Amino acid sequence: MSLSFTISAPSLGLRPELQRKIDKKTKPIGSLGRLEGVALQIGLIQQTLSPTLTKPHIVVFAADHGIAEHGVSQYPQEVTYQMVKNFLNGGAAINTFSKQNNIELIVADAGVKGEFEEVQDNFLNLKIAYGTNNFLEKPAMSEKECWKCIEQGSKVVENIAKKGTNIIGFGEMGIGNTSSASLILHHLSGLKLAECVGSGTGLNDKGIQKKLTILKQADRKYPKNMKAFEVLRTFGGFEIAHMVGAMLEAAQQNIIILVDGFIATSAAMIAHALYPQSKEYMIFSHQSGEYGHVHMLEHLRAMPLLLLGMRLGEGTGCAIAYPLLESAVNFMNNMASFEETGVSEAANKQTPI
Amino acid sequence: MSLSFTISAPSLGLRPELQRKIDKKTKPIGSLGRLEGVALQIGLIQQTLSPTLTKPHIVVFAADHGIAEHGVSQYPQEVTYQMVKNFLNGGAAINTFSKQNNIELIVADAGVKGEFEEVQDNFLNLKIAYGTNNFLEKPAMSEKECWKCIEQGSKVVENIAKKGTNIIGFGEMGIGNTSSASLILHHLSGLKLAECVGSGTGLNDKGIQKKLTILKQADRKYPKNMKAFEVLRTFGGFEIAHMVGAMLEAAQQNIIILVDGFIATSAAMIAHALYPQSKEYMIFSHQSGEYGHVHMLEHLRAMPLLLLGMRLGEGTGCAIAYPLLESAVNFMNNMASFEETGVSEAANKQTPI
Repeated sequence: MSLSFTISAPSLGLRPELQRKIDKKTKPIGSLGRLEGVALQIGLIQQTLSPTLTKPHIVVFAADHGIAEHGVSQYPQEVTYQMVKNFLNGGAAINTFSKQNNIELIVADAGVKGEFEEVQDNFLNLKIAYGTNNFLEKPAMSEKECWKCIEQGSKVVENIAKKGTNIIGFGEMGIGNTSSASLILHHLSGLKLAECVGSGTGLNDKGIQKKLTILKQADRKYPKNMKAFEVLRTFGGFEIAHMVGAMLEAAQQNIIILVDGFIATSAAMIAHALYPQSKEYMIFSHQSGEYGHVHMLEHLRAMPLLLLGMRLGEGTGCAIAYPLLESAVNFMNNMASFEETGVSEAANKQTPI
Repeated sequence: MSLSFTISAPSLGLRPELQRKIDKKTKPIGSLGRLEGVALQIGLIQQTLSPTLTKPHIVVFAADHGIAEHGVSQYPQEVTYQMVKNFLNGGAAINTFSKQNNIELIVADAGVKGEFEEVQDNFLNLKIAYGTNNFLEKPAMSEKECWKCIEQGSKVVENIAKKGTNIIGFGEMGIGNTSSASLILHHLSGLKLAECVGSGTGLNDKGIQKKLTILKQADRKYPKNMKAFEVLRTFGGFEIAHMVGAMLEAAQQNIIILVDGFIATSAAMIAHALYPQSKEYMIFSHQSGEYGHVHMLEHLRAMPLLLLGMRLGEGTGCAIAYPLLESAVNFMNNMASFEETGVSEAANKQTPI
């Protein structure tokens, strides 16, 4: 198999006109800070001076990890299953925040160890297997499984896009998945593994050292300089591989990709390695409290919107950052311009930031 | 006259129980980062385990400044008047963001150079004079005027409180008012004036140097070590003095004070100097792009929620940060607990951040 996405960066032809529209709003030049950059980016993605956000979705991909048996997390593996039940019952943080901000939430079983009986509109059964292989022993996925994840992830976005959605956030749940993300960061950035490993759901220093020792041991089994797809199938989770396919499909369809924290950004790194232009469609919702996320963002030269020390995953960063994106498109569409109001412009125009 | 607010810090008795409720939610300990601190603060202000936000308001106080005649701003003085018209016509950034987040907006003329004919429910005529005195010549306000501002600001909050509101953001408009805020910061923090002066609405380096020269000249006319009230009446604007009264009344009534950027925080500094406990009721919405704001926040030991390089004023920081406060109270009220769901708790509980 081979990847067959067609992803090109948005044309920059509209950029001067977008910037002019931003600068003509009744406010000092540049005074809406990052919101102006977001408005510009969305305007370019949508190739319009009047960008909109339509039917926002968040998809949470959940899956289990073979490595979780080795005590790399504070929580037992069954928490993945339990938390998916919690999502389906509406009790998790992502339910609360999605509801608050009118975002439709979809929960996908990408490979959880356990069966869900729920037949709910917002549940997708995409189970690849009952968790990945333990990468201490062999690659987390077969090539075939990894392709299937990408294909299924892509299909999820294809279906959501049919509803007219133009923005999708991606979240995840999977006990053990900070280990996967750390190894992906290590391989794609070249940073030392110790720079990539953090406390996950809450390990103390001793726990982090143990996790690092286990991940080093695993890492020694595999070649250096693997290509992105190989890194993904070796260390990734089913949820991460689904996110890669979903993000690539979103970019292909000019859909805004709202990126969550450490795990989602590891998927973004893979997507970016495969299709560098996909990054132009990504908005980075927040910088996670998880050590290592800042390195991912630096690697991608990405500026996160929020810095609140959150490290929960589930797409919660996407959900709480979403109103800022609304503000960005709203000021473009609803604020008056100097011309419309007769407000005097600055004596000496400049762009100080 | 003398100040007669009764402001005490919220009792901390409920703190352990609030923290326990936060920690029992189905998420790793501490993983909602700053949202958890906000939930705790609001819970303490309201003395409840189920904090709420009710009928949020933003009040924008507008006024003119005598110092504006001296070219301390990029914009001509009449922009204050024009922008108030823009607020009343719904065309400004604060209109857009307040509407987006269902915040009721009130615009108060605290001393604009110009008359407003508009009779609108959301407009308050509190005009003290047609702008302050030029503090290069004499104090910006008489003692009597400054008292009147505080009294009127307090009254505004008293009236809003009657509607059942428990959260109010404060914004401002006033060409020249970063000069006032810089001098307030200088006097209350002891920092060198050069550390307190920035580009305001967009001065370049040369403009900032000119502004600094003018403000140094003004500052030499007045004693060092003035008390907070004297600093306020000497350098403040009518809008700043109104905000001081409004913030103190809010604190007195256990109403959450949402603090905007550089100018609003200068009012918060005065309020804090007069009644240190008032700070316990303040949530700092964002760190402005205006140089000097970070010093104010450090002086108050305040952690802003957003860092987006915004420097527009009008209460726009309050308006866009508001959904984060909603998220904080929503997770407290709507997320399920470990007990309710049967999700397993961490093997080894700890609070890593």
